[in-house]
Amino acid sequence: MSEAFQIKSDPALWESLDMDVERFKAVPPALTEAFTAIFLSQQNRPTGMAYFDDMVSNIFTGRIEEIVAAGQEGRPVVGTFCVYVPEEIIQAANGVCIGLCGGSQGSIADAEKILPRNICPMVKSAFGFKVGRICPFFQAVDFVYGETTCDAKKKTWELLDQYVPTHVMEIPQMKRERDLRLWIEEVKDFKRAIEARVGKEISEHDLKKAIATLNAKREAMQRLNSLRHHDPSPISGRDMLLIQQIAFYDIPERFTAKVNELCDELQERIDQGSFAAAKGTPRLMVSGTPMALPNWKLHNIIEGAGAIVVNEESCIGTRYYKDTIATDGATMDDLLQKLTERYMQIDCSCFTPNDDRIDQVIKEYRESGAQGLIDYTLQFCHTYNIEAVKLREACAREGIPFMAIESDYSPEDVGQLQTRVEAFLEQVQE
Amino acid sequence: MSEAFQIKSDPALWESLDMDVERFKAVPPALTEAFTAIFLSQQNRPTGMAYFDDMVSNIFTGRIEEIVAAGQEGRPVVGTFCVYVPEEIIQAANGVCIGLCGGSQGSIADAEKILPRNICPMVKSAFGFKVGRICPFFQAVDFVYGETTCDAKKKTWELLDQYVPTHVMEIPQMKRERDLRLWIEEVKDFKRAIEARVGKEISEHDLKKAIATLNAKREAMQRLNSLRHHDPSPISGRDMLLIQQIAFYDIPERFTAKVNELCDELQERIDQGSFAAAKGTPRLMVSGTPMALPNWKLHNIIEGAGAIVVNEESCIGTRYYKDTIATDGATMDDLLQKLTERYMQIDCSCFTPNDDRIDQVIKEYRESGAQGLIDYTLQFCHTYNIEAVKLREACAREGIPFMAIESDYSPEDVGQLQTRVEAFLEQVQE
Repeated sequence: MSEAFQIKSDPALWESLDMDVERFKAVPPALTEAFTAIFLSQQNRPTGMAYFDDMVSNIFTGRIEEIVAAGQEGRPVVGTFCVYVPEEIIQAANGVCIGLCGGSQGSIADAEKILPRNICPMVKSAFGFKVGRICPFFQAVDFVYGETTCDAKKKTWELLDQYVPTHVMEIPQMKRERDLRLWIEEVKDFKRAIEARVGKEISEHDLKKAIATLNAKREAMQRLNSLRHHDPSPISGRDMLLIQQIAFYDIPERFTAKVNELCDELQERIDQGSFAAAKGTPRLMVSGTPMALPNWKLHNIIEGAGAIVVNEESCIGTRYYKDTIATDGATMDDLLQKLTERYMQIDCSCFTPNDDRIDQVIKEYRESGAQGLIDYTLQFCHTYNIEAVKLREACAREGIPFMAIESDYSPEDVGQLQTRVEAFLEQVQE
Repeated sequence: MSEAFQIKSDPALWESLDMDVERFKAVPPALTEAFTAIFLSQQNRPTGMAYFDDMVSNIFTGRIEEIVAAGQEGRPVVGTFCVYVPEEIIQAANGVCIGLCGGSQGSIADAEKILPRNICPMVKSAFGFKVGRICPFFQAVDFVYGETTCDAKKKTWELLDQYVPTHVMEIPQMKRERDLRLWIEEVKDFKRAIEARVGKEISEHDLKKAIATLNAKREAMQRLNSLRHHDPSPISGRDMLLIQQIAFYDIPERFTAKVNELCDELQERIDQGSFAAAKGTPRLMVSGTPMALPNWKLHNIIEGAGAIVVNEESCIGTRYYKDTIATDGATMDDLLQKLTERYMQIDCSCFTPNDDRIDQVIKEYRESGAQGLIDYTLQFCHTYNIEAVKLREACAREGIPFMAIESDYSPEDVGQLQTRVEAFLEQVQE
């Protein structure tokens, strides 16, 4: 299969999306090369990964065509940057929700023509994609819905609005009753914005159905992550990261079915003793900031060093799917309250205090059977970077080997990170 | 006078405050030297500056004794880091409000033993003061009241709480009716916290009187800044910055009286044609992040290059005093509503959108008779740094010469900043 794999190109489609086609043409071959090296070089992958590989192959073509077709049918196509924006409401309006977080070094220079250099690479990458017209997803959305979860994103949305209509949801900074009240109002605004786009109110039936759809998606991912925690793991950390990244741009129902198929296969592999890495392979958990597609840098370093990643406590990870929504709400207000309460359980470091996250990291560490924790912070992400102080203290109390890494998307620190990861693995195996 | 000037020392007092006395002993002589070079070298200063020089002379002794005495009388001594924490309420409880923002390189290394290096120097300096026990103000406060205005501060308060009791006020991120509702609740919490400390409710009478006291202080500073806008200016930018810094640790009534005395003198100087700089001296305005004592770096560079600073659009500047509070509230709820509405007019870049600030900068620029704008951002302050993009655009539209500077407290970039400021002055004078 690795001979045949190719990330497909469709210049005519990209042209129709007003992309910088000449420039973008270089992206699929480069990404094909990276994907082949990082993913297809792995031994004994589950056969169910074929679907997810195919999603990558079609990332700039087939999936874009589906999204464009949805737009042509009048369905809203909404871009988001954060797991706090409730996709159940987009789903209830029969819309398409696309996670637009940027994980590529290729668009950073575009962003830095406008934005300061010393802000988060994910924010710069996303902004650069739009400014440079080099992301077909960004070009295909009707509008984007940002939020206020960090300084860099909050202020960048003001500038992004000059390129694409950008709504902003205020996410409070604490989790008390008064914050919940404000938050519910924000969710209602979001619902109104989506309804205005489709010219139709979302019914309780629509929302309940959407909640069930997304609950099923999150439950499938919980199941997958739980199977993966088996020692030895039946699937690599790289493959798990990829699936969690694809969760942000695939069709929920289809994705859920494919994740459940993969789960069935992983269960069989466990029963048959077929694993992604041999018994005794060092097991590491990663916590912290999200790794947006195609940011595979740290996982590649860790697994290249002979370890396996067994959990991602991250927005592109467990924060996305650890909680579901109660569907027993009788009225729309009930449903929105329960929905908001579910979103309030997500424990991003933007909240203060945020000790629940520390507890959650320790809990996931225990469940995953990890032997060491690497806390990953995107460069200049102040909230995760400072919260790492408390996480380090908690790990010291719990006797958990801990290492903090701050990095961006550039290849410059790869050698240094390899050295640090190798030293950490020695410490873990002592 | 410059021969006699000395920042005084009192090791016994510092010992009683559990300071690292051995280490702190070196601070007053070093600060004496810096203050003498930067302030006392100026020609033709207003005689009214003697009071403010004296406040500097007593900064680690006489003023600390006053604060300690207030505490011994049972009065609350509250440390704050932000102009959003309403000092009227502390004043109403007969308390002492001390601004604890750090402006010194000397405590950065202490902070960096715990905090990440790549966050705001003001936050690191303040945190380092406490961790290193090298700030008598920090040692003298009962508790501190932080807020959520930026990622670095919000998360640092969680750690600071391990060293000194730290309350946090949630400042919303937008300015709509629902944000005002949340904000008023926060102000009420703050009032309750102060009342709990003194064991006594704040009456309407107390609060009205405190509002009048602080209004008078802010009005005196408005008057001072307005006189300073005269061309030529009767007072230097360095002296103005110093007065605005002292505003955060002096007794309000005394400070107001002294500012008004100085205003009377400045009016006389204007009438007599006695100025801080000759007619034709290039006039620059500074906007952006606050310059906490003893951060005199940029003003010293600008005025050392032969220009004069004629306005600070900053928290340690006009944002602190441009607005007053209506005192016609009939009930406590009325008063707190009006107080909160006043605080909501402060246009920190932590808000989104924040176009009112852009308008305010342009307005102050026109009023001050400046010939160029330097937007100053403390390193890694994402909100001001990104907002500078819009400010630059606005200045281009208005034909205002604009330069953005990002800096910290280290002396390393002084040479480079001098070169940039000199080049900007050439551009301004073309």
